[in-house]
Amino acid sequence: MILTVTPNPAYDVTYSVPRLRPGSVHRVAQVRERVGGKGINVARVLTQLGESVCALGFGDDGFAAELDSAGLPNDLVRALPRVRRTLVVHGRDDTTSFWEPGAALDSPDAADALCERLRARIGDADGVVVSGSLPTGADPALPARLAEIAVHAGVPVVVDTDGEPLRTAAHVPGVVLVPNADELERLRPGSRESADCLGACADLLSTGVRAVIATRGADGVVAVTHDGAWRASSDVRVEGNPTGAGDAAAAAIVARLSAPPVDWPALLADTVATSAAAVAAPVAGEIDPATRARIRPEVTEAHVPEETSRS
Amino acid sequence: MILTVTPNPAYDVTYSVPRLRPGSVHRVAQVRERVGGKGINVARVLTQLGESVCALGFGDDGFAAELDSAGLPNDLVRALPRVRRTLVVHGRDDTTSFWEPGAALDSPDAADALCERLRARIGDADGVVVSGSLPTGADPALPARLAEIAVHAGVPVVVDTDGEPLRTAAHVPGVVLVPNADELERLRPGSRESADCLGACADLLSTGVRAVIATRGADGVVAVTHDGAWRASSDVRVEGNPTGAGDAAAAAIVARLSAPPVDWPALLADTVATSAAAVAAPVAGEIDPATRARIRPEVTEAHVPEETSRS
Repeated sequence: MILTVTPNPAYDVTYSVPRLRPGSVHRVAQVRERVGGKGINVARVLTQLGESVCALGFGDDGFAAELDSAGLPNDLVRALPRVRRTLVVHGRDDTTSFWEPGAALDSPDAADALCERLRARIGDADGVVVSGSLPTGADPALPARLAEIAVHAGVPVVVDTDGEPLRTAAHVPGVVLVPNADELERLRPGSRESADCLGACADLLSTGVRAVIATRGADGVVAVTHDGAWRASSDVRVEGNPTGAGDAAAAAIVARLSAPPVDWPALLADTVATSAAAVAAPVAGEIDPATRARIRPEVTEAHVPEETSRS
Repeated sequence: MILTVTPNPAYDVTYSVPRLRPGSVHRVAQVRERVGGKGINVARVLTQLGESVCALGFGDDGFAAELDSAGLPNDLVRALPRVRRTLVVHGRDDTTSFWEPGAALDSPDAADALCERLRARIGDADGVVVSGSLPTGADPALPARLAEIAVHAGVPVVVDTDGEPLRTAAHVPGVVLVPNADELERLRPGSRESADCLGACADLLSTGVRAVIATRGADGVVAVTHDGAWRASSDVRVEGNPTGAGDAAAAAIVARLSAPPVDWPALLADTVATSAAAVAAPVAGEIDPATRARIRPEVTEAHVPEETSRS
């Protein structure tokens, strides 16, 4: 059982229009709406990978009902007055996005309640993923608190967040971080200039972080751990929608971490293939299994010598 | 008591962004959401005018709860799987709108149920307004059926719709139609070329329509009835948001019709002033009472000689 935690869920709404023309009225031809938010997308991909999951997080009655309808086991703290939407407008020539801010939690006890839910379920968990942003005004230390609960229970935990919440989580001994290039640059400015960001990742290990797995889009992934550093990539190019590729990566990572011992090169190969399979799927939170199966044997992994990874 | 009927309600959502840039991600600074749809907006304006109202129509549990929260008495047939949204994106330089299509009714009996609700309440009604579009796939004759229920009960009824539903409603003897210039042009092509559209309006009376009140934006309004024809306009220009001006006009019209005998020039003057007061209010479904009070005495009305109105 893998637990995902989504503090700031969203309805992912997609509008199809012939062409986006600022200043005009558009009759939307097609509206698609589904429950989302990064941790929800991770839970969906884990389900496709054959893992059993439970989606924790904040929400409201309507959102929980939608998760039920989607067949996603869930246990939400009902503390959001409304669940935000992320709107994507697909035109013939371009894709335009609007991200609503998350509502504020309606109770000062909501964060404690979420920690309590995780604590109550951690005994049945083989892995935990804490994903995404926080509701407006929530304590940026919440992902770190959640990670500590998992670490104290001896359960592997992945934190995929950004900004101050990532900065705080990076001080939790035992946590696994999965930053993309932008997030790593904000956490360790200058990492982008380095060809392989190994120095920035290695630097993070000094605070007790178990591993940093940096996702770099088409350049593949890099993992820096206390046991060594590896990189993996594929020459196969996949066209599609990169939204959700990071969530698919987090799903592949926690799936491997939840079944020790961890084979890091295999974990990285899974991550590359699963991310690519998310790009090939039309919507975030899904992977194309055929793409995953096709790419997985094509991924090349390499151990990175210590002098390089510590440079 | 005035009954409004909204077959295709909507959540009116407004996003504020610095500038709309196609192809980009926008973090929305402010989200405003309120219950809407044309008949709901009419009910709101009627409430501001001091009338007691009940909002009928289709909806779902959540939408009815939102009407309750807004203090709008309502009696909805819960037959929509979801209530559509109309999204307005306000940028510094322009306003861009996205109109979702209405969902399909989830029961073949829903239209009959709505007629039954109206029939049950018509004995307490002094006026009825049927406003706006229909859910996807609904019978275009539904507004006509609703209007017939009111006419048979001797209750004045205004139908404000478009296209085939308007065409069908225009055959209900006793109905009052309130088309804008675009709607009238679609109903009677060529009406726009005429300086005052009187011929097109008079033509509609031949099918038994009680009155046609054509709203023409800054050019004021024209009413053609079996008792004569009138026009009214104001030289005072009001800057603002024209969305909802037609709904305010319908509210002013039904308010006068519900308190016979009808003073047509006064009705038209009310209509001009109330529409202008809607333009001056920031959101659809509201009027600025000070603007209404200021403009009302400035409206000039004129009887139109019969030879002109029949030309």
